[in-house]
Amino acid sequence: MPEAASAQATRATIGASEFDRDTALVQREPGVYDIDLSAGWTIISAVNGGYLLAVLGRALADALPHSDPFTISAHYLTASQPGPAVVRTETVRTGRTLSTGQASLFQLDERGEEVERIRVLASYGDLDSLPAHVRTTAEPPAIPPIEQCFGPEAAADIRLPSGGPAPVDGSSAIADRLMLKLDPSTVGWALGQPSGKGEMRAWFGLADGRDPDPLALLLAVDALPPTAFELGISGWVPTVELTVHVRSRPAPGPLRVSITTRNLAGGFLEEDAEVWDTQDRLVAQSRQLARVRLS
Amino acid sequence: MPEAASAQATRATIGASEFDRDTALVQREPGVYDIDLSAGWTIISAVNGGYLLAVLGRALADALPHSDPFTISAHYLTASQPGPAVVRTETVRTGRTLSTGQASLFQLDERGEEVERIRVLASYGDLDSLPAHVRTTAEPPAIPPIEQCFGPEAAADIRLPSGGPAPVDGSSAIADRLMLKLDPSTVGWALGQPSGKGEMRAWFGLADGRDPDPLALLLAVDALPPTAFELGISGWVPTVELTVHVRSRPAPGPLRVSITTRNLAGGFLEEDAEVWDTQDRLVAQSRQLARVRLS
Repeated sequence: MPEAASAQATRATIGASEFDRDTALVQREPGVYDIDLSAGWTIISAVNGGYLLAVLGRALADALPHSDPFTISAHYLTASQPGPAVVRTETVRTGRTLSTGQASLFQLDERGEEVERIRVLASYGDLDSLPAHVRTTAEPPAIPPIEQCFGPEAAADIRLPSGGPAPVDGSSAIADRLMLKLDPSTVGWALGQPSGKGEMRAWFGLADGRDPDPLALLLAVDALPPTAFELGISGWVPTVELTVHVRSRPAPGPLRVSITTRNLAGGFLEEDAEVWDTQDRLVAQSRQLARVRLS
Repeated sequence: MPEAASAQATRATIGASEFDRDTALVQREPGVYDIDLSAGWTIISAVNGGYLLAVLGRALADALPHSDPFTISAHYLTASQPGPAVVRTETVRTGRTLSTGQASLFQLDERGEEVERIRVLASYGDLDSLPAHVRTTAEPPAIPPIEQCFGPEAAADIRLPSGGPAPVDGSSAIADRLMLKLDPSTVGWALGQPSGKGEMRAWFGLADGRDPDPLALLLAVDALPPTAFELGISGWVPTVELTVHVRSRPAPGPLRVSITTRNLAGGFLEEDAEVWDTQDRLVAQSRQLARVRLS
């Protein structure tokens, strides 16, 4: 855990945290919002895709009559930069239990013209209105206790894959925003010994202690190092498309995130994430299609 | 296999088949297309969601500079009816290797006003340009040989779950368009003995013998009876959102489709599909979020 967070006597609360501050939108007119994308959520120089999804998810939560993203699909078009952005939403359909909306994030290019960065399509509902009935066959991942897992402070001492980005290195601002503790069995890549399995597992939280909510789940699914590292690939793995299903409101406390890749082929791979809360409930499922640079 | 198809001496070809005829679009103006949705792809009275996705996918293949859907996400808004419809597309971004587009399908309601049925967001590329490199850990599902699996003609003789739809019964027109042979180990629901596992597997093809292509994969992922049947749920399971990744151009011959559900909770479930071709390649992956009526 970053020193700033460790030293913190009181935990941040939902609505009053770094994550809430940096996803806060200012309504320009109905359905249109301004935001200053924070440089605090970058990996090297790229703004994290989960943070961007949370920004768009928050805009739709405001614009639609329902507040919780049940399923949200994002297509990443061009690389976002820290700085001013505008989010334009459209209400596609409103229903009793579900509403569907669309949102795009734009930034100005060097000529002052709007460039679209991401477009999302999403259906929202009310998680608290769902029946409590659960009949799942899914089981939480076997991750060692949090104190046996590796955090960013350890990663500074371990070798990074040649030519690859340093996702948990000090040069990535997002490392200071997150409590990320990697399962020792999925950090072989950092020791020059990738397992060859497309797996990555970690405990996940916000560094300032804010508890998870549905918007934080959008961040959680795209916050771990790519599974490609454990497959021995050390280049960038940019997301083409990411879809998240939020299945339940997460209980307070750290989340467990398990990511798997089955099919690396033709220069693309899928990353499937499952997110579990402290009550052993599967609170989110996601899948992304990403491009890989084979090394 | 339906009699009409069995009796056919020559196989239909890509571009000249029932599927091609019923997904054919007439361009009204650039990016806008008219289509008469066929009653031949209905389950009871509902137009099949995979057929509709193929219609939208074909519109985008025409409108975008790239022809193959790499990842396509659909949100189902209102129930489509057989009959006239219009598809409006928007080119969101064009790049060298990927282009992103959006499309919506509209029909007129009883007052003559346009109602949006489905909206999709998709990124297209060129499957034939991808490197041949494959490093997958995924393995094809163990489905018995096609002649040991159950087709629609057998389903007429087996009991259907009480209160549920009859997805492979003669009352569903789509059954005559498809070659669907269900794995005996996932047809317990039809015998009143659902396995309790969220699994459904089948051989899949077009009844007229047309070989699969990327658009047919969009149909294949949503053509099997819902996994919910094997979980003992007999009501409708309408799709909220369906995302398909097309990973490779399928080889000629029948496909194997494997669908799994891990998490039935709060009145929703996910259905994950994998589609394999005759060369044992994983040609498509999909996930949908569907609503369930618990019985």
